[in-house]
Amino acid sequence: MIIHAVGGYEEVGKNMTAVEVGRDTIIIDMGLRVDRMMIHEDTDVHTLKEHELRKIGAIPDDRILDGKHVVGIILSHGHLDHIGAVSKMAAKYHCPIVARPFTANIVSQLLQDDKQSNKNVIPVESRGSLGNFQFEFINVTHSIPDSSLVALYTKDGDVLYANDYKLDPHPTLGDTTDFKKLTGIKPKVLIIESVRVREQKKTPSERIAVMMLQDLFFDTNFDFDCLVSTTFSSHISRISTLIDLSKKVGRQPVLLGTSLCKYWNAAMEEEIVSEDVVRIARRNARQKFLKEAGDDRSAYSLIVTGHQGEIDAVLSRIVDGKTPFHLTNRDCVIFSASTIPNPVNVANRYKLETKLMMQNVRMFKVMHVSGHASKEDHRELLRIVNPEYIVPSHGEFDMISSWGILAEEEGYVVGKDLFTVKNSQRMEIP
Amino acid sequence: MIIHAVGGYEEVGKNMTAVEVGRDTIIIDMGLRVDRMMIHEDTDVHTLKEHELRKIGAIPDDRILDGKHVVGIILSHGHLDHIGAVSKMAAKYHCPIVARPFTANIVSQLLQDDKQSNKNVIPVESRGSLGNFQFEFINVTHSIPDSSLVALYTKDGDVLYANDYKLDPHPTLGDTTDFKKLTGIKPKVLIIESVRVREQKKTPSERIAVMMLQDLFFDTNFDFDCLVSTTFSSHISRISTLIDLSKKVGRQPVLLGTSLCKYWNAAMEEEIVSEDVVRIARRNARQKFLKEAGDDRSAYSLIVTGHQGEIDAVLSRIVDGKTPFHLTNRDCVIFSASTIPNPVNVANRYKLETKLMMQNVRMFKVMHVSGHASKEDHRELLRIVNPEYIVPSHGEFDMISSWGILAEEEGYVVGKDLFTVKNSQRMEIP
Amino acid sequence: MIIHAVGGYEEVGKNMTAVEVGRDTIIIDMGLRVDRMMIHEDTDVHTLKEHELRKIGAIPDDRILDGKHVVGIILSHGHLDHIGAVSKMAAKYHCPIVARPFTANIVSQLLQDDKQSNKNVIPVESRGSLGNFQFEFINVTHSIPDSSLVALYTKDGDVLYANDYKLDPHPTLGDTTDFKKLTGIKPKVLIIESVRVREQKKTPSERIAVMMLQDLFFDTNFDFDCLVSTTFSSHISRISTLIDLSKKVGRQPVLLGTSLCKYWNAAMEEEIVSEDVVRIARRNARQKFLKEAGDDRSAYSLIVTGHQGEIDAVLSRIVDGKTPFHLTNRDCVIFSASTIPNPVNVANRYKLETKLMMQNVRMFKVMHVSGHASKEDHRELLRIVNPEYIVPSHGEFDMISSWGILAEEEGYVVGKDLFTVKNSQRMEIP
Amino acid sequence: MIIHAVGGYEEVGKNMTAVEVGRDTIIIDMGLRVDRMMIHEDTDVHTLKEHELRKIGAIPDDRILDGKHVVGIILSHGHLDHIGAVSKMAAKYHCPIVARPFTANIVSQLLQDDKQSNKNVIPVESRGSLGNFQFEFINVTHSIPDSSLVALYTKDGDVLYANDYKLDPHPTLGDTTDFKKLTGIKPKVLIIESVRVREQKKTPSERIAVMMLQDLFFDTNFDFDCLVSTTFSSHISRISTLIDLSKKVGRQPVLLGTSLCKYWNAAMEEEIVSEDVVRIARRNARQKFLKEAGDDRSAYSLIVTGHQGEIDAVLSRIVDGKTPFHLTNRDCVIFSASTIPNPVNVANRYKLETKLMMQNVRMFKVMHVSGHASKEDHRELLRIVNPEYIVPSHGEFDMISSWGILAEEEGYVVGKDLFTVKNSQRMEIP
Repeated sequence: MIIHAVGGYEEVGKNMTAVEVGRDTIIIDMGLRVDRMMIHEDTDVHTLKEHELRKIGAIPDDRILDGKHVVGIILSHGHLDHIGAVSKMAAKYHCPIVARPFTANIVSQLLQDDKQSNKNVIPVESRGSLGNFQFEFINVTHSIPDSSLVALYTKDGDVLYANDYKLDPHPTLGDTTDFKKLTGIKPKVLIIESVRVREQKKTPSERIAVMMLQDLFFDTNFDFDCLVSTTFSSHISRISTLIDLSKKVGRQPVLLGTSLCKYWNAAMEEEIVSEDVVRIARRNARQKFLKEAGDDRSAYSLIVTGHQGEIDAVLSRIVDGKTPFHLTNRDCVIFSASTIPNPVNVANRYKLETKLMMQNVRMFKVMHVSGHASKEDHRELLRIVNPEYIVPSHGEFDMISSWGILAEEEGYVVGKDLFTVKNSQRMEIP
Repeated sequence: MIIHAVGGYEEVGKNMTAVEVGRDTIIIDMGLRVDRMMIHEDTDVHTLKEHELRKIGAIPDDRILDGKHVVGIILSHGHLDHIGAVSKMAAKYHCPIVARPFTANIVSQLLQDDKQSNKNVIPVESRGSLGNFQFEFINVTHSIPDSSLVALYTKDGDVLYANDYKLDPHPTLGDTTDFKKLTGIKPKVLIIESVRVREQKKTPSERIAVMMLQDLFFDTNFDFDCLVSTTFSSHISRISTLIDLSKKVGRQPVLLGTSLCKYWNAAMEEEIVSEDVVRIARRNARQKFLKEAGDDRSAYSLIVTGHQGEIDAVLSRIVDGKTPFHLTNRDCVIFSASTIPNPVNVANRYKLETKLMMQNVRMFKVMHVSGHASKEDHRELLRIVNPEYIVPSHGEFDMISSWGILAEEEGYVVGKDLFTVKNSQRMEIP
Repeated sequence: MIIHAVGGYEEVGKNMTAVEVGRDTIIIDMGLRVDRMMIHEDTDVHTLKEHELRKIGAIPDDRILDGKHVVGIILSHGHLDHIGAVSKMAAKYHCPIVARPFTANIVSQLLQDDKQSNKNVIPVESRGSLGNFQFEFINVTHSIPDSSLVALYTKDGDVLYANDYKLDPHPTLGDTTDFKKLTGIKPKVLIIESVRVREQKKTPSERIAVMMLQDLFFDTNFDFDCLVSTTFSSHISRISTLIDLSKKVGRQPVLLGTSLCKYWNAAMEEEIVSEDVVRIARRNARQKFLKEAGDDRSAYSLIVTGHQGEIDAVLSRIVDGKTPFHLTNRDCVIFSASTIPNPVNVANRYKLETKLMMQNVRMFKVMHVSGHASKEDHRELLRIVNPEYIVPSHGEFDMISSWGILAEEEGYVVGKDLFTVKNSQRMEIP
Repeated sequence: MIIHAVGGYEEVGKNMTAVEVGRDTIIIDMGLRVDRMMIHEDTDVHTLKEHELRKIGAIPDDRILDGKHVVGIILSHGHLDHIGAVSKMAAKYHCPIVARPFTANIVSQLLQDDKQSNKNVIPVESRGSLGNFQFEFINVTHSIPDSSLVALYTKDGDVLYANDYKLDPHPTLGDTTDFKKLTGIKPKVLIIESVRVREQKKTPSERIAVMMLQDLFFDTNFDFDCLVSTTFSSHISRISTLIDLSKKVGRQPVLLGTSLCKYWNAAMEEEIVSEDVVRIARRNARQKFLKEAGDDRSAYSLIVTGHQGEIDAVLSRIVDGKTPFHLTNRDCVIFSASTIPNPVNVANRYKLETKLMMQNVRMFKVMHVSGHASKEDHRELLRIVNPEYIVPSHGEFDMISSWGILAEEEGYVVGKDLFTVKNSQRMEIP
């Protein structure tokens, strides 16, 4: 068995791993590196060709798979750093693209947006087979619906792919981690994320975020007019919480922004949520709504795009005076998201927050918990599945190398049982 | 009316403020600056005299009160940076020391420990008068029982002293903030802490800490032998939570360490808690207990001193091999406290954590929420009490000056309605 | 005598101070806050009106001077944060704008660029009088030619304005600080910058930067093709050093970029430099030159704009492939500048450096020393001029408040001898 | 050929590498990890046994060399992280310990201090042979005399060991790097330090430090009484500079402190310096001298131990009032050293500096340049010696892994030409 580290082994982004057994190869995830798009001002992912995106480091360099017989592409969940390169790279493999329903829905849309066929996309509830591989999706908690660990069962041993996850005992939407399935697996190789392996704690449950938001929404001493919240557009459970709390305090929730509406629509189509909330995606309709909302500010709870200070998102547009709606010191902005630690995001958030401060708008920052496993989540998973070999993935090289500390605490030996590989390297499993 | 900024106006520590009306002066708080003790290796607070402690900056320099007619000392709550200098400085004022029962209990002990009389200490439930001053304790949420805002009613106008507090809608022990009293006050001067005024959020409720600890204690996937928790010795509600959760998972909670036992005893005496938990203060008894506990590690949940890595605390002693009890990679240490940001604490925690890592012990860090108001708690209080003047206190000069940003957002003018004063300065209220 | 803190007392930028004596008021400096421009994407300083720039905090709010009889505007030196608002705000005062020749040259150009008359700009070598004020320029070392402390001699006492300066014993262009004049002054009020007062050192001499550049240029073991340097366009002494060293190693220096050429031209007109180096300001000419230079890469030493990663500067354009000239791993980029600590600059530099790394280009960062006084330069000046009162300026509020530490070490008392004022406040000197 | 990574491959400290060729093994360096001593309060390196020091991670774990035929120990230079474990570990190897004269002198003393025989220590000027190995010392610039790269010539190819060095074109004491020898070497394996490989610059020359000190000593505007400097005790060139400058300004230089005197004595014995300066090692003599010096403060320039705030060093003792000599605001302390970035040092320096500030003493910090190669020094060496394989050493794992970035820029492939190994691992060279 050979593990090919195609992308995401030197960065947080553009995840792509391939597993080769006998004459067949299977690909797991095919992601975009968003921050590499951001450093090139005029870059539009839709117009750039594969080799151009590869050159700027925005998509994985998959030339190490040339000549391999690829039997399928499995997508673990619907975040762009796991599926965002499908519309650029997948066609040439002429193979099925399997994903759980919500993920399949999202990737189908991405293909359509990019004028590609989505006929190869196959929604799969739980398991199937592709060439030499039996595969199975194992439900896990993260920050987007239908997040999964991916198990591969092969004649040379089993592989467990654990990108991205946390072990949340109290998810607020969807099922909790499928420990029953997990305890039945004894993988030869565990491929596992490294984003927060250095943090010596367990990642807090989503219910902690819910509780903090509750305390804010239900605080009778807070007096304010308009309430504006912003979070990750794909974080359906968080958005559900914001909608639910808004209603409970007698305000009409309204989703504003293209991507917020896109992900919510997908969640409704897949019957993950039943809430038919007001959604306004298009700019003209938004302008019209915001003009009216300005006259009845305390009637609404706006849920908007723009948590990273993205220049064209709804929140930035409001703050820049590009809408008929203006914020004052009687208004609150809730950032139910962390700043993704990248200087471009930091600068965008700085610009946004400086303008909010110049307008005296109240801010509630970091009303958020992460969706990524910390060191003690990883230890828990490690003890449950007890793999023979560990291949850390999804991180900069120093994050990946930090996995060695945990592994050695649990009796593994770096270089013998745990292998650190870089993009474009391959690891032959003994 | 004159406000005398005696201590705590250039540092986090040694808080002391005096208010002069007519011929009478009243003192609020009389604290110790613990980090100034720490930089002097051989310093023992018990043996040092007042002028020596003043010279090293450990206690307030109260010489600006020379000649004043001091009619009383009011203590807002029982933390050392608010009461730790009483045994060094109070005697010379020959006046009553009033405090709510738990605080009075603690300060009486401190006086006894320092071979001082505690006859002037007067427990007061709610209100009283001292010279020209009517005073009232207003219950507030913080991180120690009987925390209070202090209201002074005088002929020249009223003063509200708001050190330390947060506005927690869901305290887990004791009453919530007495908003009924607060809404009845319209102070001329608000003296208010600055520790976290720069943080653009509301401080999370104590129930968030409880929830995080619950998720950890009740996680059936975690497997471990011994469980060791450490938190602030005076944080009775947190300790109650740890005791309660320990019992719920079938482990015997045991408090280990002098100061943990001292504060818990005080809380029992004042009927704040009814839990009669096993407490072992003395070193010999601890050694004996730990020897036995080593044979039945999973029966206990140890709650110990040492969250800042203090060298002589129980946790450091265990880790340094000075007890018969040793930790392994099957054991967990829960830090239900943040590191107080001071290089000496940072170094002590670093030493402690490095040793824990060398012993492969699992750590859960930052299972904690702060007890100090953030910017949006302050804004809430400000709007409720609507003071004429603001005097920020309790902070380094840059923290204090940051209060100006919030005040200006709310319509105050720095230098006209808000005054930044430094230690040993006085402010005449117009 | 009244000191009006118009701008620069809450930020690094838009410096403007006014001194009122009797019926006359004089203004010193009238600067732009560049980072406030940067957070507004589409902002063009040329098209915005005064009240718009004031609203976004880009220029000082001088409405506290309404009704004052302003007799003149004195400019201390030619940096934008000291002169950049002249073209927006000065006209309404109908008064002379006096500055030393290089500064006058620069400000005249700015007025012309903004379609304003420059007839009020009066170059002054050393001294003069305006209304009730005698003024004198005292040469000082900084990072732009003709930098000066400004002395005002009035019937109510003298004022020394010390923004910006360092005390460099070995400037590499122009005279050193005029200590002879300085020792003759005993100002009542010292208005002094705060940018680096917290740094416990003396700022290194410019010759340190020269020496580091020498070691790099003369290192025979370095092998490379093209050499690209970038520094502040107004830093004429540093540019002279780069030109001089380039020639000594047999490479043709070429200045590329509009602002580099503009400042160098001014320096030549004022006979500060005699070096008639090749300068290419216009984009078309640059493209043509760069096309040819590509064929003979080791013949040139390019000195370009773009040290902060500015998107339209020459360095960014080269790196983005917008010129016919491309860098490789045989080329070096020297950053003879620090990153101005502002998230927008940090992000721009990050983008630039990431692209340089993706092209394998060698970087030499921080080949630079600051032009701002550190704590020990300030102490030296303080002891020489021994002012009665100190008014710290030019800094965020916490920098300004840090001046108090130094002043108290030297026997001043904060609140009595040293006053911290904020924008739009006035200080009556006793 | 096998490279054994014994120590220093997961930390900055306890460097030890072994090279095995045929039946013989040679060891290069045998260092102490000082920070692991510091986290254990009561630890005394003299009294601890080898297995105890190994357990706390203070010395390398050399059990991977069990059974090897070790033919010699070569020491590259005299810093403790390269020679400090010799007295604990070397005896059992019963083999020669070769080093250049200054290093040999220092290690002989260490052995004597530890009651060990130094009969195996053999000073070697330049080259020799041990078993299957020819070795050669190649002079290099660093921050201690007789610093060397070590070349091994073997039948299986040559090894160049490059710990620690920088490429300084202008060393101020001793010869510059022996480029002539270097250009003659084409090593199969380059073992090279990683401490500063991430810094995108060339490390400044020692003459930069000299120049900064000159500007300070010769500044006629500075007025002060006593001058106290502190630097690394083994940094003979820096100490020479301080002595020289002190004399030039008419002050008597005096070395105070045990380790300062020890290293200076060694430098005199080896005829590296000829300066016979006053040196006072013993505490009693120091007390006597300091009592007298207090009466004639401006006559002396004290050069003392204590740059890291070490509690028992001379500077800490002066500041703590443990000597008859006291500092005032007329005195200056020059830190001609950086703070070694470790929380324990940071805390010690914080304590020291806080006390200095409380005594109003002037500080000049960071009058220093590093002795370690930055990224561009490494690139220069890499291009000169052009090794077949690279093994980064001397760093935490993330520093070591950062070498990969540079190597890949220069055409190497991580995992194929560059190997990252951890302590106790071995690398078979193809």
